[in-house]
Amino acid sequence: MANAIRALAMDAVQAANSGHPGAPMGMADIAVALWSRHLSHNPANPHWHNRDRFVLSNGHGSMLQYALLHLTGYDLPIGELKNFRKLHSKTPGHPEVDVTPGIETTTGPLGQGLANAVGMALAEKLLAAEFNRPGHDIVDHHTYVFMGDGCLMEGISHEACALAGAWRLNKLVAIYDDNGISIDGQVAPWFIDDVAARFIAYGWNVVDKVDGHDIEVVDAAIEEALKSADRPTLIVCKTVIGKGSPNRAGTSKAHGEALGADEIALTRKALGWDHAPFEVPADIYAAWDARDAGAKAEAEWTEEFNAYEAAHPELAKAFHRRMLGELPANFAEIAAEAVGAAHDKAETVASRKASQIALEAFTAALPEMLGGSADLTGSNLTNTKSTPSLRFGEQGQVMTTEGKIGRHINYGVREFGMAAIMNGIALHGGYIPYGGTFLTFSDYSRNAIRMAALMKRRVVHVFTHDSIGLGEDGPTHQSVEHAASLRLIPGLDVWRPADTTETAVAWTMALVQKHRPSALLLSRQNLPYLPKADADVITQGAYVLAEPSEVGINKKAQVVLMATGSEVHLALQAQEQLAKLKIAARVVSVPSTSVFDRQSESYKVQVLPRGVPRVAIEAGVTDFWWKYGAAAVVGLDRFGESAPAPDLFKFFDITADNIVAVARKVVGK
Amino acid sequence: MANAIRALAMDAVQAANSGHPGAPMGMADIAVALWSRHLSHNPANPHWHNRDRFVLSNGHGSMLQYALLHLTGYDLPIGELKNFRKLHSKTPGHPEVDVTPGIETTTGPLGQGLANAVGMALAEKLLAAEFNRPGHDIVDHHTYVFMGDGCLMEGISHEACALAGAWRLNKLVAIYDDNGISIDGQVAPWFIDDVAARFIAYGWNVVDKVDGHDIEVVDAAIEEALKSADRPTLIVCKTVIGKGSPNRAGTSKAHGEALGADEIALTRKALGWDHAPFEVPADIYAAWDARDAGAKAEAEWTEEFNAYEAAHPELAKAFHRRMLGELPANFAEIAAEAVGAAHDKAETVASRKASQIALEAFTAALPEMLGGSADLTGSNLTNTKSTPSLRFGEQGQVMTTEGKIGRHINYGVREFGMAAIMNGIALHGGYIPYGGTFLTFSDYSRNAIRMAALMKRRVVHVFTHDSIGLGEDGPTHQSVEHAASLRLIPGLDVWRPADTTETAVAWTMALVQKHRPSALLLSRQNLPYLPKADADVITQGAYVLAEPSEVGINKKAQVVLMATGSEVHLALQAQEQLAKLKIAARVVSVPSTSVFDRQSESYKVQVLPRGVPRVAIEAGVTDFWWKYGAAAVVGLDRFGESAPAPDLFKFFDITADNIVAVARKVVGK
Repeated sequence: MANAIRALAMDAVQAANSGHPGAPMGMADIAVALWSRHLSHNPANPHWHNRDRFVLSNGHGSMLQYALLHLTGYDLPIGELKNFRKLHSKTPGHPEVDVTPGIETTTGPLGQGLANAVGMALAEKLLAAEFNRPGHDIVDHHTYVFMGDGCLMEGISHEACALAGAWRLNKLVAIYDDNGISIDGQVAPWFIDDVAARFIAYGWNVVDKVDGHDIEVVDAAIEEALKSADRPTLIVCKTVIGKGSPNRAGTSKAHGEALGADEIALTRKALGWDHAPFEVPADIYAAWDARDAGAKAEAEWTEEFNAYEAAHPELAKAFHRRMLGELPANFAEIAAEAVGAAHDKAETVASRKASQIALEAFTAALPEMLGGSADLTGSNLTNTKSTPSLRFGEQGQVMTTEGKIGRHINYGVREFGMAAIMNGIALHGGYIPYGGTFLTFSDYSRNAIRMAALMKRRVVHVFTHDSIGLGEDGPTHQSVEHAASLRLIPGLDVWRPADTTETAVAWTMALVQKHRPSALLLSRQNLPYLPKADADVITQGAYVLAEPSEVGINKKAQVVLMATGSEVHLALQAQEQLAKLKIAARVVSVPSTSVFDRQSESYKVQVLPRGVPRVAIEAGVTDFWWKYGAAAVVGLDRFGESAPAPDLFKFFDITADNIVAVARKVVGK
Repeated sequence: MANAIRALAMDAVQAANSGHPGAPMGMADIAVALWSRHLSHNPANPHWHNRDRFVLSNGHGSMLQYALLHLTGYDLPIGELKNFRKLHSKTPGHPEVDVTPGIETTTGPLGQGLANAVGMALAEKLLAAEFNRPGHDIVDHHTYVFMGDGCLMEGISHEACALAGAWRLNKLVAIYDDNGISIDGQVAPWFIDDVAARFIAYGWNVVDKVDGHDIEVVDAAIEEALKSADRPTLIVCKTVIGKGSPNRAGTSKAHGEALGADEIALTRKALGWDHAPFEVPADIYAAWDARDAGAKAEAEWTEEFNAYEAAHPELAKAFHRRMLGELPANFAEIAAEAVGAAHDKAETVASRKASQIALEAFTAALPEMLGGSADLTGSNLTNTKSTPSLRFGEQGQVMTTEGKIGRHINYGVREFGMAAIMNGIALHGGYIPYGGTFLTFSDYSRNAIRMAALMKRRVVHVFTHDSIGLGEDGPTHQSVEHAASLRLIPGLDVWRPADTTETAVAWTMALVQKHRPSALLLSRQNLPYLPKADADVITQGAYVLAEPSEVGINKKAQVVLMATGSEVHLALQAQEQLAKLKIAARVVSVPSTSVFDRQSESYKVQVLPRGVPRVAIEAGVTDFWWKYGAAAVVGLDRFGESAPAPDLFKFFDITADNIVAVARKVVGK
């Protein structure tokens, strides 16, 4: 059975003349132990709620997973394996969720799959605590992750695994392909970690020194892992990379290139595998086939679920809704109420506070909202009355506070880990994760934000302290390039709201977007409420906030001031001053450029009429705004300074006076 | 002496009504032990080459360092402490190198100071191996770093400390302020690491369970650390955050806000400190004063150095040159030769290979160039014949290969750690660090790149596999937004060269820029050589590569095609096709937008004449290019796909044909 994987992997890589045979060949025996003896899954239904989750964190070994999916009976015919790494095949270079049936997450960027798995295991544990009832364990599965040296060198492995230990995620089983080889060669000169000791230090259960080529031994190690009641388990498997290849096994040459026809022939011989490329004998197929067992497992679960449904119909309904990622039926009303309340109260608060106000409404109505912060809860204001802190007991159980399960996660100072764990939570289903840090530290988590966008998952990033407006903490903490740079990530909606209403709308839109992550950029400092006729139009991403009212014939604007977030009220002040100078300025608030980009051409022209010069205002780098036809941009193309915020806006000339000066220049008046 | 720190910290934070008193008050006793008994430094000369380096990785505790610098006699008068966190003071919110005398690195983004310290300790060890001679230990100092829980939760601490262990950096002493508190409160629910065990797993020497408020005990722990011959040392100091404050000590309230007038009064009483705010009695000043000892230490070293200079004049000269960051006197010739050779050979190679060709020349001539790769050496091509792999022996000694000290670092799969360690190497002086990874994984190291830009340090990032052109590895590995997003970082020069000459020039410029980091974005795939008259003009960042030669009256361009890197040759093909259609197109190659931005207006207009429409071509997101007045951009505003590169360029319509179609539309022909 293992040799079928080896053969498919080397043949597919050879056909593509690209890819990584070493990991599939080295982990083939481990895969036999896990996939044929433990993994509970149904090839006919890759979306079965209670399936075990399997993550290949060393995603370059994608052919391992494709071989397994093919052999066990997923809808992945041999033709797809022959098209490995070809355009529009179901077998891309790295595993991609929603492209290939049975792939749970997109991996490749090392360490992140492991963190995703931590998120999945957390979601499972929380859902079980929330939904299971005596006699009805409808949520009860494991999360398995394969990983290599690279994953364990990456810093994110530290963040995610420390949390898995603190959270006592006993149903997480991580299997380490300890082959001592990375791309640069034998790892000894740059990787001397005692991995077992390191994971024990995190509070993990460790099964060390497992022969990764002895299926019985691996099987026993997994058995031991499944007994852990209060700790996640690491299984350290000693393996030989490229196992089976006479000349490449155990070397970095096996890692990332095709073996070549000659070596493949030698490998076939050495393995005693005398079948043609992409040919697997029927008995091997039969041994791998997991369709019957999978159908049976799901059928049993369905029966259990039906009993649960009979006993707890409301819970069952809620479970289904949440696993499908659907919002409550009354979501529109909840949102309208939140937006309306903000509009009515018209408060002057920081937009981070506005976010908390919106969150109070949404978290009260949406039990699936699972918040958190990277050790900045009191600054990010991600917590609400409905979201007690998540805590675990000594036995690994989820604790309750006044009968409520925790729904706000203290992620610690682990931005990247938080973001990738949130991706895992979203991938598992059942929760809408959101988490906070300072905007500048979106740098730390940036690739996980990108991955959420690539995977099209609803993850909401709450980035507060979004500009020089944070003041004294200085340039290390002041974002200048981050709003612009996040906007460059395809598929991510970035919101920089200007007041409480815009913030409530931003939250609404972030929740509605089932297939899109969002980032909310929020101020530390107070922002005045901006009177507006209609809050609905905010959903367009940009809208006319204020027409020139006191000057000009027909109120026709001579200049459009486009601004975002904390600078919109400056644009309004400038508008007034310009009015006194008989210059008619329209103020356009642009809370989300990507959302605006998706509007109709006619709406766009309505907001930004052709031929009227535009001035953009944002307390950040100016490069981005030329896209919107700005004739001038008021911003700052340098790092900030440490000082009280009002001094900084003055020093950097991000003031109504300067907007007026720039607008006059643009208008030529 | 410790109470002087506590008083200054709480008074300064109170005066600013902003800042972090908890860490300075909690670490004050540790600071006494280190700064008054061990740290070798000269307040009168913060640039003394052989000073001990001190890094406050928990940079929010900046008042600790400002108090120490003030008390020991640096040019930081009490008035500056009174102006804590005010505009243009020498006491910004977080420590900033080059702003305050005695600050070695800018800290605040947690974990990075620790990684910088690893870089400094590495630089010291390598310089010592390179320059010391029997009887002449002219490089011989320690690197000390203070750090808190936050630094140790961050993933980068894993990457940097694993490397410090593998490199056996015995002169690195890390002191952990183990106060059990982070911003969100008592850390137990989210931080259960056995830190001592974790660091032992990295191969560190650990002095555990040190009473951080007993100066003698801390002193003894440091003594023990200084004895370590083959391992870095972690000293775990149990402390009380905000020590001295009756009501806030030991709580997260002490962490990040002013104590308030009442609590300060109570603290003064509890400490028995009855001096007015910002007043330190003369005897305490005297006890702290490090000026005489510092002057003596430097004088002794100077004497030693003079003896060394007499014995090894060439080495002494080279040491001075390198510590000042000056290039060899013949650098211009070396560069001209490298560029000239590329021009003459006119090779068709990948730009990553072009980079290696340039590096062969530069590393042969510049012994200060210290390369590396995050486990992608064979892909990044950062190694050369002059740069053997860096290796350490069991006793911690630097090994040699054929008599040569290693100059290429296998950083392992640790992009962020690599980048921050490179910052530390650059800050220490003596080396010009460069390191490679795939462009997409610049996401992982992004904040350290930003920090290099903020600190104005010469660090060169070699980012290969820079677009969909990498092909089969697919969207997880294909950069689409990265070129644009790196260009947004103020002070960073981004180069995307199109052929061997442009690459050689990019390297030249990166080396010349003493106060600026650079990023080189390089192709995986081969790029044809672009015939050009003059290579010098490449230094302008953008230049006219090819004028329309065969059409039109006076060869006046009707359209300008601006392209970068792997797309420039497509623009040239399009130019030819357009010529056949009687459309005169100029091709402008834009290897570096930031460098072009620094040119004169007249040069800019010369390259991009007013009134001639422009089409930008880059295999990435289009947003950035509107800045240069593009009428249209040929690019891709979505993630890539897994397939061979030629298929992808076709699929995404990044082809000469499409450039022609777009140009025709723009010209209206």
